[in-house]
Order: sequence, then C-alpha cells, then structure tokens
Amino acid sequence: MADGISISSFGPARSTIKGSPLSDSEVAQHNDFFKASCYLALGMIYLKENPLLRQPLTTDHLKARLLGHFGSAPGQIFTYMHFTRMIKKHDLDAFFVSGPGHGAPGVLSQSYLDGVYSEVYPDKPQDIEGLRNMFKKFSFPGGIGSHATPEMPGSIHEGGELGYSLSHAFGAVFDYPDLIALTMVGDGEAETGPLATSWHSNKFLNPITDGVVLPVLHLNGYKINNPTILSRISHAELVNLFLGYGWQPYFVEGDEMDSMHQAMAATLEHCVSEIKSFQKRARESKQAFRPKWPMIILRSPKGWSGPRKLDDNYLEGFWRIHQVPITDPATNSAHLQVLEDWMRSYEPDRLFDKKGAPIPSITALCASGNRRMSANPVANGGLLKKPLRMPDFKEYGIAVNHPGAVYDASMQNMAKFLRDIMALNPTNFRLFGPDETESNMLANVYEAGKKVWMAEFLEEDANGGNLAMAGRVMEMLSEHTCEGWLEGYILSGRHGLLNCYEAFIHVIDSMVNQHCKWLEKCNEVDWRAKVASLNILLTAVVWRQDHNGFTHQDPGFLEVVANKSPEVVRIYLPPDGNCLLSVMDHCFRSTNYVNVIVSDKKEHLQYLDMDSAIKHCTKGIGIWPQFSSDSGEEPDLVMASCGDISTQESIAAIDLLLTFFPDLKIRCVNCVDLFKLIHPIDHRHGLSDREWISIFTDDKPIIFNFHGYPWLVHRLTYKRPGSINLHVRGYREQGNVDTPLLLAIQNRTDRFSLAIDALDRMPHLHNRSAAAKQMLADEQIAARLEAIETVQRFEF
Amino acid sequence: MADGISISSFGPARSTIKGSPLSDSEVAQHNDFFKASCYLALGMIYLKENPLLRQPLTTDHLKARLLGHFGSAPGQIFTYMHFTRMIKKHDLDAFFVSGPGHGAPGVLSQSYLDGVYSEVYPDKPQDIEGLRNMFKKFSFPGGIGSHATPEMPGSIHEGGELGYSLSHAFGAVFDYPDLIALTMVGDGEAETGPLATSWHSNKFLNPITDGVVLPVLHLNGYKINNPTILSRISHAELVNLFLGYGWQPYFVEGDEMDSMHQAMAATLEHCVSEIKSFQKRARESKQAFRPKWPMIILRSPKGWSGPRKLDDNYLEGFWRIHQVPITDPATNSAHLQVLEDWMRSYEPDRLFDKKGAPIPSITALCASGNRRMSANPVANGGLLKKPLRMPDFKEYGIAVNHPGAVYDASMQNMAKFLRDIMALNPTNFRLFGPDETESNMLANVYEAGKKVWMAEFLEEDANGGNLAMAGRVMEMLSEHTCEGWLEGYILSGRHGLLNCYEAFIHVIDSMVNQHCKWLEKCNEVDWRAKVASLNILLTAVVWRQDHNGFTHQDPGFLEVVANKSPEVVRIYLPPDGNCLLSVMDHCFRSTNYVNVIVSDKKEHLQYLDMDSAIKHCTKGIGIWPQFSSDSGEEPDLVMASCGDISTQESIAAIDLLLTFFPDLKIRCVNCVDLFKLIHPIDHRHGLSDREWISIFTDDKPIIFNFHGYPWLVHRLTYKRPGSINLHVRGYREQGNVDTPLLLAIQNRTDRFSLAIDALDRMPHLHNRSAAAKQMLADEQIAARLEAIETVQRFEF
Repeated sequence: MADGISISSFGPARSTIKGSPLSDSEVAQHNDFFKASCYLALGMIYLKENPLLRQPLTTDHLKARLLGHFGSAPGQIFTYMHFTRMIKKHDLDAFFVSGPGHGAPGVLSQSYLDGVYSEVYPDKPQDIEGLRNMFKKFSFPGGIGSHATPEMPGSIHEGGELGYSLSHAFGAVFDYPDLIALTMVGDGEAETGPLATSWHSNKFLNPITDGVVLPVLHLNGYKINNPTILSRISHAELVNLFLGYGWQPYFVEGDEMDSMHQAMAATLEHCVSEIKSFQKRARESKQAFRPKWPMIILRSPKGWSGPRKLDDNYLEGFWRIHQVPITDPATNSAHLQVLEDWMRSYEPDRLFDKKGAPIPSITALCASGNRRMSANPVANGGLLKKPLRMPDFKEYGIAVNHPGAVYDASMQNMAKFLRDIMALNPTNFRLFGPDETESNMLANVYEAGKKVWMAEFLEEDANGGNLAMAGRVMEMLSEHTCEGWLEGYILSGRHGLLNCYEAFIHVIDSMVNQHCKWLEKCNEVDWRAKVASLNILLTAVVWRQDHNGFTHQDPGFLEVVANKSPEVVRIYLPPDGNCLLSVMDHCFRSTNYVNVIVSDKKEHLQYLDMDSAIKHCTKGIGIWPQFSSDSGEEPDLVMASCGDISTQESIAAIDLLLTFFPDLKIRCVNCVDLFKLIHPIDHRHGLSDREWISIFTDDKPIIFNFHGYPWLVHRLTYKRPGSINLHVRGYREQGNVDTPLLLAIQNRTDRFSLAIDALDRMPHLHNRSAAAKQMLADEQIAARLEAIETVQRFEF
Repeated sequence: MADGISISSFGPARSTIKGSPLSDSEVAQHNDFFKASCYLALGMIYLKENPLLRQPLTTDHLKARLLGHFGSAPGQIFTYMHFTRMIKKHDLDAFFVSGPGHGAPGVLSQSYLDGVYSEVYPDKPQDIEGLRNMFKKFSFPGGIGSHATPEMPGSIHEGGELGYSLSHAFGAVFDYPDLIALTMVGDGEAETGPLATSWHSNKFLNPITDGVVLPVLHLNGYKINNPTILSRISHAELVNLFLGYGWQPYFVEGDEMDSMHQAMAATLEHCVSEIKSFQKRARESKQAFRPKWPMIILRSPKGWSGPRKLDDNYLEGFWRIHQVPITDPATNSAHLQVLEDWMRSYEPDRLFDKKGAPIPSITALCASGNRRMSANPVANGGLLKKPLRMPDFKEYGIAVNHPGAVYDASMQNMAKFLRDIMALNPTNFRLFGPDETESNMLANVYEAGKKVWMAEFLEEDANGGNLAMAGRVMEMLSEHTCEGWLEGYILSGRHGLLNCYEAFIHVIDSMVNQHCKWLEKCNEVDWRAKVASLNILLTAVVWRQDHNGFTHQDPGFLEVVANKSPEVVRIYLPPDGNCLLSVMDHCFRSTNYVNVIVSDKKEHLQYLDMDSAIKHCTKGIGIWPQFSSDSGEEPDLVMASCGDISTQESIAAIDLLLTFFPDLKIRCVNCVDLFKLIHPIDHRHGLSDREWISIFTDDKPIIFNFHGYPWLVHRLTYKRPGSINLHVRGYREQGNVDTPLLLAIQNRTDRFSLAIDALDRMPHLHNRSAAAKQMLADEQIAARLEAIETVQRFEF
C-alpha cells in the first residue's frame, strides 16, 4: 500500500493485514450471503409484490412511492456478516451500531437472515409472505423506518441525526468488560463535530473494567450530493489522523469481491486478536493502560455491487446511488429492465428456497441465540437494567426548623446523596459532565468515584486532580460526547446523570430532542423494556452570572424540552435543598423519561423541612401557608414562584408588601413540577382546572416569578380559568456582567419590582399604594447602587 | 525533540524550528512587553485603586469581588506580541481571534498598550487614571466582560461559548486574500465537537482567492478543573493528529522566557514565510492547491509566570490558576503579600512612566494605525460592508393569474434569484449548507458558483459534481462549521445565507443564541458598524417527512429564536413563491438581524401575484379576500394560517366549510411575519391591538393553522383581545414514516380536522353541523386510506 494519494474504492482488495483465512467454499458462501442481503435491501426499497421475482418484474410489483437508501447498505452488510464469523469463532458478545443515516435496509437484511426479525415480528417469517410483508412495510405508514429506529431489533442508535454513533457505542461498553460494539461510522457523519471529537473517547476507556468499541469507518465516498472529506484526503493523512486520535487503523479497500472477503476476514481476525490481547494483558497484570485500539477503514464503493452507470450517469461509486438508485422504473421500461437485471444478479432463485426461506448454506453463517447481534439484550437495555441501590435521601435532609431562616447550599448537600448512590452502585451508575462537576459544587462525589482518565498523568494530578484509570465520573469538554456516552450507558441498561451549565445545555438541544423521540417510539414498541431515565441537572443558572455575563444567560432549554411528547418529558425546579433531594430521588427511580432538574449551585435560603419537602414535591405544586397571610381564606393576591432564586425574591416581595399593608391577604404558591401548570389534556401531570382554581383562584391577580423566560408559563397556562389575571416575570434577555440584583431588576424579577407589580394589580388599594410604590422604587434604587458599589451578591 | 511522551510545559524552549532571530536587547524588550501585559491582566482582576502599586498594596485597593481569569492570558499575550513583530516586519494585514474562554485580560492588555483601547474608550487613556478605569470596569456592571465581547476592539469572536474560533476565523478570511487570522485555540475548546471538525476547514480554503488562518493551539494543559486531552497525549500522537487534519504543526514548548522568545520568533517567521510562499506559488501559477498550511502548537504553563505554588497547592502549570489565581488576599495577609510580590515581579515601576503610560521601549514594539490587530477594520466588518448588488426580485415572480390555481416550486424558483445575486457579487456573497443545497432544490445556484472543494478530485466529479477550487457554495456535513463560517464571513463585512433541514437546525441552536447575543450587544456599542443579517433558510420541513420519519420532524427552532431579544430576531413563513422572493429580498437588505425563513421545498399552490405578494409581505399579515366569504363584513369565523403547507390546508378547509354552509362568512387571514402576532410592547413588528381586532376580531372563533408547535402562537398572543377564542393547530410531536396527510391528521392540521374544529366552535350551526362533521370525518378516513394505499402525497 503506497503512501500518498490512493483514494479509489475500485479494484482488488488492498489491505494492511494480509492473509487468506477463508477457504474457497467459505468465500463462495460469504458471497452468497452478501448477495442475498443486498437483494433484501433492494427489495425493501422497490417491491410490494413478487418478492423473489418468481415472475418477470412489472410495474405492478413496484411500490407506488419508492423510499429508502441503498448507498451504505452493501458496506454495512459486508461488515456485519464478516464480524458474525468472528462471533461464532470466538464466542464474542457483540452488537452492531449503524452510524450512517438511513442504514436500515442493510441492517434489517441481517436481522432477517439470522431469524431475529421473524422472531420479533411473527408476521414476517422466513417465507414468501414474510418477505412481502417486510418489503412492503419498509418506510411505510405503520411500518418500519429507514433509519435504525427503536422498532429495529438490536438497535440503540437510530442515526436519524448524524454524529453520535461512537459516543453511543462507548457509553454502551463502559462497565461491560466483555462487550464489543462493532460500530459503523459513516464518512458523512464523520464530518460532524460530535463525531469528530468522539474518537477521543478512547482516553476514557479502561481495558480492565470496560468492553471495547471496534469502529469501522466506512469510506463509501459520498454524502447526499457531495464527496466526503475523509474519502478525499491522502492515505498518509488518513493514517496520521487516526494514529493521532490514538487508534491503530487497518485498511480494507477495494471492490473485487473475493479478495475483499479475504481481506476483511483477515483484518477482523487481527483486530479481535489485538483486542483480546490488550484486555488479557491489562486484566492479568491488573494494570490498566491505553493501547492503540484497532479500528478499520473500509473503503468500498457507495452502492457497491450496483450498476456502475445508468445511461450516462455514474451510479455505483457515486452520490447518485445514495438513496433510491433508479428512480423511474415505473415510467421508464429500460430502467425497469436494468433494475430487474440488477436484482436477478443477486440470484434470488438460488439463494432462497421454494418456500422463500434463505438456503441452509446462508443461514449456516449466522450466529445463534443471543449471539446474533440484533438479539443481544444489551440493545434492549431495559432487560438488563437493575434498579439503583439508593440510600434513603431523607438521611441527607437539611435541618429547617424555621422556614426561610436557614442558609445552606442545596447542591453541595445533594452531592453527598449522589456520592453515596455512586458508592452503592459501583458498576451501574456514572456521573457525566463537561468539566463542570467541581464548579457545579458536586465535588463530594469524587470520594466515591474519581474521574476516569486514561491519558497521561503528571505529578500535579496528585494535588487535587481526582483522576484515576478506574473511576465513576466522566468529564470531557464536549457536551455532545458526555450526552452520547450517557445515552449509550442508559440504553444498554444502566443509570446516570449529566450535569451542565444551564446556558450551554443548548449545545445538545438536538441530541435531547432525538433521545426524546427515541423514547417516545420505544413506548410504542412492546418488546422494548423500559430503561432508566435520562437525567439532566442544570445549574450555573441564568440569575448568577455576574462574571460570565450575557453569553451564560439562557434558560431556554426548558422550551426545547417542553415541545417534546408529554409522555417522556419532566421538568423540575426544586425551590430548596430538601426539595432537590426529593426530586433527585424520584428521577433516579423513574424510567423512560427525560428529567430536567434546575437548581442553583450557591447558598440559598431553605424553606421546607424534609417531611414538608416530600409532600410538596409529591404534589408538585402547592400553597405555602407559612409564607401566606390569607389564613386559608380567599386571597387578595397570589404570589407564585417556580425556581429557587425566583422563589426567594417572590417571598421577599410578600414581606415587603406586608410591611406596607399588613392586612393584605396574600397567598404564597410554589411550583416544583413545571407540568403541573399545563392542562391535564396536554400532560398527565397537569392540575385539573378545579385544583388550579383552588390554588390560583380564577379571579385574583397572580404575580408569578419564574426561573426561565416568562412566556413559557403563559404557553403552559393559556387554557386555565383566570389566565388573564396571570402576570409572569422571568428572564427577558436583558443582561450583561451584572450583579444578581441588577440583573433581576433589569428583568423585573426582583422583590421590589414584584411588589410594585402586585400593587399595580390591586386598584382597590389605590391611594395607599402610590406612596408604597414610590418607597419601593426608592429602596430598589438604593439596593442596586449598593450592590454595584460593593459588587456583592444581593441576598438576604 | 524526541518522539513518544513529552508533555511538560516547563523548561527551556523546545521547538521544531531552531534559530535565534532576536538580539539580546530585543529579547529584553519582548520580556518587558510580556511583563507589562501580564501586569495589566492581573490588575484587571484585582485592583480598583493603586493601579501601578505606587503605594504598598492593601486590601483597600482590592476589588470587593474578584472576577476574571488569568490562566490563558500569558500564552495569549506571548502569541499576540510576537505576531505583532511579524506584522511590522512584513506589513501584514492581520487580526486576532481569541479562542479560549475568558480571554479578555490577555487581549485587552495588548489593545491598551498599543493605544487602540484608549482611542476607542477615551475615559481609559494611557495614564494612571486610565489604568484605574480600565481595571475597575473589567468584569464590572456597565463595564467590559471577561470574554472577548463586542465591546472589545478587534474582536469578532467572543469565546463565551467554546468551539467556534477556527470556523469564525476561516469565515473571516474567505475572499480576503491578504488577510491573516491569527487564531488562538484553547486546548479546552479543542475538545468540543465543533472545534474538532473545524480543523478540516482547510479543505475549503483557496490559496489564490482567500486569506489564511494561522492557528496557535495553546496547550496550557488544563480546563476549569481537569487536564486537557490534547496536552496529555504523546508528542507523536499530536504530530500525527495535525498532519492528519492536513496541517503542518510546529511546536514551541517550555517556560524559560528568553529561549521561548527566540523559539516563538523563529517559528512565526517560518510560518509567515511558508504562508507567503504557498500563496505566491498559487497566485503566480494561477493554480490553486491545498498546501499543508502551518499551525503552531504552543505548550506553555497555565498561568505562565505566576507563582508555582501557593501554600501546598500548585498554581502555575495547574488548573488552580484558571480563574482568579489567589482568591483570598482580602482576608489572608500572607496571600496578599504573595500577590503583591507577584505583581511587583512584573516591574510596573520601571515599565510605566511617571504619568502611568507604558515606556517608549514597550510601545516601540506595537504596530501602528490599522496594522494594530485590534484596530483592523475587518473586526468591525460593518465598516467594510458593501451593500449586495441585487437583481430586481420581481423579475423572478411566478405568474399567478388565478389565486390557488397554479402549482409551482417556490424554492426552486427562488434559487434563480439566489443564483443571480451570487453572480452579481462574486467576492461578497456565499451560500452555506451541510450537503443539502441540492436536496433543498437550490441547485440552480451552481450555475453562478460551484461548491468549493480543495480536497482530491475524481473522474466522477465531472458527472454533476459541481465542485471547483474557486466556488461560491460551501458544503460540509457540519452545521456547526457552516454556521461558524457564515458568522465569520458576515462579521467581517460580507453577506451570506445558510440553508438547512428544519429539524437539524437545532444542532446549532446554541450558536444562533450566541450570535443573537453578540448582535444585541453590538447594538449597544456605538462604534460597531452594522453588519449583514444572519439569514437562515429552513426547508425539508416537518410536514414532508414521509421517508425520513419522526427524527426529521421538529419545527422548534422558532421557539429558540423567539426567546432572543426582539431587537435582533425576525421570523418569516412565506405562504407561496412570490412571498418567498419578497421575503428573501428584504432579508438580504437588512442588517444586524437573525432572519429565519421557513419554506417547503416541494411544489405548492401559488396564491398571490407579485404585487399582492409584496403588499402582503410588507404588511406581514393580512386578510385574503380572495379566499374569504365575509365580503368585508363581520365574519362568523376567522380561518388563519402561517406557513405554506398550513396555509394550503387552511384554505382547503374554507372550501370544505363553504361546500356545506355556503352562507358562512369566513375570513381568511394569512401571517408571513410571525412577530406581527405579538404585542408591540414585546416586539416592534407587533400589530397594535386595534389592528389585531380589525383582522382577527375580538369575539369570533379563530382557527389558526400553524406551521410549528401550536403553543408558540399562544405564547405570542396571550395578551391579545379575544385570545381566548384562538384555537391553534400545529405539530404536536405525533409522527412517524407517514404520508403527509396521515401526519397532518395525527396532528389535526389537515383540512378535515380544521373544518371540524371550526364547526365545533360555531354552536349556532348546531343541528346542521353534526351531519357536516360526520361527512367530513368520513371523507377524512377515505382520503387517509387512499393516501396510505397509494403512498402518494395528498395534495390538490
């Protein structure tokens, strides 16, 4: 293999590892398997009838609308089937991650040939009728999608949005020391940022305690309409890039079938042997190290084995074969003939028996039972999930004898609970975060599990570095990678938590969207067992960004989450430390949700003792009589809040109002569970209108101080009786390097503004309120100036 | 320099390029400059008084709250000042991109010493008072932030969110052939996905027509509380990684001052010479090629020149020096002394004169005029911006003689307008997109400008590849890189458009958030000239995802944008092709906005001729009498819509209703400019309530068919009179591989559902409506079944 440019995917195999481990008959057998698989992939795209072409192909047999992608199927099939040989030979525990988008035809064909698909979907048996059903239901309403969706057995990675195959695969193999994630990485998705940095995951993989990811970078050369970058750089650059990422790349390049079978077989044998020898060395010596794990660069033509040209246009080995290769067989009889010839070149007559089942020499290549990759229970992680062992969160309660009189750090306190969960679940729970765990006041967890670090160590690390080769905390400055790892870890049956600065969780908006969609579909797939919820703890919140400034002020992730299906999303804003404990406990016990918890990391007033906190969190929203002056009667005013800092200001505003108007009947309401606000028709957590009225009234002014953007509350409550009386304050994108008070004033969420707002809405106080408002405004100015001068937090 | 592990940042310089280009006195001079700069950086973090330590340091001189980051400052200072030497020597046109977060102290010090800062902010002259002001106002309310914010002269890249330095830098140098973007890349941000893939930008840079980015990867070893990956892999891995990315890495490593000056000077000289020679070769031969552009890997200790230890804790060369290095000088007198000794080690007495100005031997090192990097007008791009040369968009109009009778492809038609803009602005406009331009029906643009491609070419490329070394379309499968390039291109004074699938624009939610925040602050900085708007065209919309399925259905980007400041965001949903043209024309002429345009890419009914379209788009919302039956009178019902597909269904629903009830007075309303809906107090585009009532009434039922999530409309309209009568339909996260009609029915946005909704809200039709509803429901079922059977789009 020469250095320099060598980027053709055509010709006899060129490979790093030489050898011809297959007998001629094995080559022939694999060739048949490949053909049968490609046939199935094409069948899914084209046929609704005549599935084995036992009659001449006519337009009546074609689907009315041709949908599906052929381009990456042959390469995925080729990889999958050759690795199956390794599984059988070495009794490997492995599963398959299909990185390229629209990978379903290639992967489904494997799951069908080895029988898993028919076991899971008995209406698609291995016969003519089963084939017809499988073909017809592909990319069809009520059927199966063109990505590796939740409906596909063996999938934990849909690939509908590109870039997460490697991080998902790594997440799945952490703490499963015998597992291999064979991971096909598309050269398209390899251009995405999340994928490009996830190669570095090998600095976080321990060869003793973790399994391994075997990536196969598929250089099939093209995306939708463009060549891919990695397929158009020199061989030397490719080698360098992956050595630089810390992998040992092995090339398998070409399209000449027989030699490619030998090359792939020899290369996989070599990779498996290297993996086993690295693991053996580390495990026998009990000394972890970071080997150059093997990876494969497979350069094969896009649409490999398809027609090289259709009329004057390149097809195989070009982007035109990305999706439906021949788009007009229904109207162009010459093209129909090309299609038929192509399909028949895969010899369906010979490779499927009379009944329509694959012939024995094909099924003989398949693994059996759970060794079949699409049957591996790791890809239906709920089956493997063990409940977390949880200490009693009440033991961690903050003593609150007088509400609103104790100051404590809710987050730091909760970290002890987290630490003990970690200690009790040494192979079942990990904490993930982009280098913010200590900044987020969670450093207590390091007592139970240090940060995994498989790169080099320096002497300084002993000075509070908290690094270890075997650890429980995963920190890399990539929200994408952290989230991807966590998703993989959960989907394969374990538990975890992501902690992140509130503003920068937007970096992974789309990943969370996609995970929500995954969960939503899982709820419709009855054989999928429930997995642990994806728990996201947001802190370093918008209201405390005096030195980070405007860029760090963004509470809008809640809007993104609230748009997703109510079946899968939950949002909690605990007002104090005991509520935070109760909420965390609840989230860790839940399944198949995305739970978002928002909590500031600084010291705060504490309001509820543990019993009250549990009651309050169980209800999710409630009246706080201890801060109310309505004595259970009809109030003049409802002062509501959601979020710890917002609650503090709202309660302070009540105090201010009562100073001026001691007789005012004010009701204090606090909301922990944001979806309590929405109508029950739109989220099952929603209060009934009757409950709503009993809390908020339907005719009294409500001043609602919200943690996030104020209009989110309006969007949740527009159906509520009396919603016209709801006056919401929250972050309105007004900020800079401001003191917390100044920031609050600019957004009118401070105690003074809230009190003035309340007075504005009680016209019956008319004359008396004008003077009070003036005094409040004066106090506000004085407090603001003082806060600026001292540049201190304004907190009481 | 040995291979293998070599990762200490301490010791005499180790560098790839040898040589000692500096005289002893030049070394001394650079040393002084470095010291003066570090002194200023520390001063900003610590001092409110006694700026040059002319009195012994006491706690009274300290800021009440210590804010700021020192860690990366020395390395940035070192790089900046040495490159200034190159600028002076070779008369280079260059500016500086500060990648690491919180880079302000390092960069501001340079801008202060060379005089730009004082010119821009006359209250901070080069004297004692100026220093005091600069120190005090750093990270202070009403002052300047700790990132490279818009208030900082010379900045186009804030760095508040990490990962975009390289893509911003590349965007800025495209089409500026003489420009060099000296780009400091933090080793923390280097772990992010967006940064990791943006190294590949070199495959899109043409050495003839574009300038060049000189990246300096700063291995200062630590992030907030963790080592960085790239600082803890072997030297060989580092070399490989960057060779693999296509760069030629040059190392400068160590902390011994004098030898480091020589090493950096020699290395920069070598890099500049390489850059010039590559450019010369390409430009003289007129033959573009992709050289291995030089980059520098600078390994210097975090907090270089700070105290190595404080008590028992490592400081310099460890993460503890990331932020405020010594946190307690106000309460720990020993630490106060350490701080004072440290600051005095920078010799402020010697390096600033009596007046407080830097001494001449320091200012002698600075460049002058616009050669000073922070004065380069490219970083205040509005100064350089030339208006786009625009053809008359009316010339591209679709003939619509009868509203709702013509079918045409709005997007494909608009592409011709785009093509001609491209042709008229050959160095001033680029189109960006993640490999979706052709799929998005914009391929016409390739007639005016092909896709830039500097990687290898193959024979297939001639077959519709549309690739060229000099082109105007930028396609890489990384939304992050495309967006980053576009931002850099715009901020440096040019124009552009990003086209993207609607669902996957969420990938860059956070980048758009940050750009909005940048623009919002620019509006408050009077010396910043306005730049072209960031235009985002979304297509492949939620309602047409029959083969892509659920993962491709997400219209929620609008919520993300709507949360940003109303001063900078605009959202348009043109209902047809002529409206799309009018909207695009408007957006290209606008400045300092983020414009989001949503338009489907398939064929659609056309409603408005060009004149009507212009009028409609100018108003932004209006009644469509041609589809109404209220004859300008008070209607029984308002049928409103926003979005092309939504409009089609809404109008069809009107037809259905009139079939059953020909006397019904229905008003058809269409909204193009989404912010027309919101109250004018919240966005200047908002209709007055009076206008609102004249369109929507305040007492009639309104059935509003919306393109996106329905609650966004409620969030925008909750203040409106009669908002209780507003019944909004939109995407409710119900989907799969569905026909468009099935998808619409599931979300109840189809014509039948809308008509039924309308009947439900007109109780006065009571008896007659029951039968009509039954018939509509039957028609709906029939149409759904037919659509599934034929798997055809349901369109009329």
